[in-house]
Amino acid sequence: MTGTLHLIGVGPGDPELLTLKAARLLGTAPVVAYPATVEDQALALEIASPHLNPDAERMPITIPMRVDRAPAKAAYDRAAAAMLTRLNAGDDIAYLCEGDPLFYGSAMYLVDRIASHAPIEIVPGVSSLTAAAASIRRPIAARNEVLKVLPAPLPDETLREELANAPAAAIIKVGRHFDRVRALLMETGHAGNAVVVEHASSGRERISPLSAFRHDERPYFSIILCYRGHEPWGRTP
Amino acid sequence: MTGTLHLIGVGPGDPELLTLKAARLLGTAPVVAYPATVEDQALALEIASPHLNPDAERMPITIPMRVDRAPAKAAYDRAAAAMLTRLNAGDDIAYLCEGDPLFYGSAMYLVDRIASHAPIEIVPGVSSLTAAAASIRRPIAARNEVLKVLPAPLPDETLREELANAPAAAIIKVGRHFDRVRALLMETGHAGNAVVVEHASSGRERISPLSAFRHDERPYFSIILCYRGHEPWGRTP
Repeated sequence: MTGTLHLIGVGPGDPELLTLKAARLLGTAPVVAYPATVEDQALALEIASPHLNPDAERMPITIPMRVDRAPAKAAYDRAAAAMLTRLNAGDDIAYLCEGDPLFYGSAMYLVDRIASHAPIEIVPGVSSLTAAAASIRRPIAARNEVLKVLPAPLPDETLREELANAPAAAIIKVGRHFDRVRALLMETGHAGNAVVVEHASSGRERISPLSAFRHDERPYFSIILCYRGHEPWGRTP
Repeated sequence: MTGTLHLIGVGPGDPELLTLKAARLLGTAPVVAYPATVEDQALALEIASPHLNPDAERMPITIPMRVDRAPAKAAYDRAAAAMLTRLNAGDDIAYLCEGDPLFYGSAMYLVDRIASHAPIEIVPGVSSLTAAAASIRRPIAARNEVLKVLPAPLPDETLREELANAPAAAIIKVGRHFDRVRALLMETGHAGNAVVVEHASSGRERISPLSAFRHDERPYFSIILCYRGHEPWGRTP
């Protein structure tokens, strides 16, 4: 019998924000795979580690950052082949995904290579989007308002157009695009309401109004929430 | 000491999709409040009930459906006053929210009335958005694509415009707007990829391509996911 590949959302950072289902499956999973950078960082593993079966075999999947390049494709091919060998031997694999597996997750590149050969099960998780909103104590969007999720690498023109008429927006994948995104948020009238949340829900969480960043400063592992419709409750970040 | 109001995301439907943090807090909460319709339905309570402190006092909050009308406002005023009485007496209250508390949640109407008088803590939850994607085994959006969350009660013109250039969209609050939304999805070229997910992750879950609905049929507690960028993995719903 072919093993099942479980994509497991481990949530945004706080190990207590795993679901009961994720914790149950990880407590018995014989093989735990997880994305690792070439610098040996593995955030999903760090989040899940209090809940892992201590005897689980660990299978780091090291992928170069740019998924559209040939080295990344070859790395995904190799990783999928290694996972399929275990699945074909009848072992289930739990693959750890930061946040939710299907909300802009990179797990799809592996699953695309595996899905026609082995059963796939998906355990949704708390996304960084809703965790960031909880951290700043403000709705993401409400009533009958449009919410736009905008990856920062999009061209200026697209971001400008989408932001111009958006009551609520979340900018993801900010990284090295921070300066450009900040300029566009100022231009489209969002800067006054934009809040930057780094490492939402984790011990490294940091909340700052967009305007608080110095010009030589950039946030890490961050999401920017823009919402004109509501002030944060209680404290102002 | 004033008690704390905890807004607790109980996830999309499966009681195992509560977070460990939500389950821990609910296991000891002295007072559990939850939205209930005038027909005495209380979905958030149903989801959370396996995890509740059996001795918890239950506090149903009955609100008429249309939140912008005077009867709803008066109901929120009464509910907030009742909750504040308990908070002022030093009791913590856990308020149960379907999905995530801040993703289009109605908890904001209560919190707006309470936040200047008592501490608020928010536990994010798995939203119906990501749970629905897990059910149909397809990314919500990926790479550098814009995702739009569109409440169905928006005017035709707004929906048409937002859908026209959207690679990925999720239609929420479908309810009685289903026929209108279906027509707009056909018009904007999304109908072939649109999947209707009812009661995602719960025992009543039902997955159907948009085209499978007869003209006199309407889905309940549903979300419609539209994504041109990826086919579902494995089985086709």
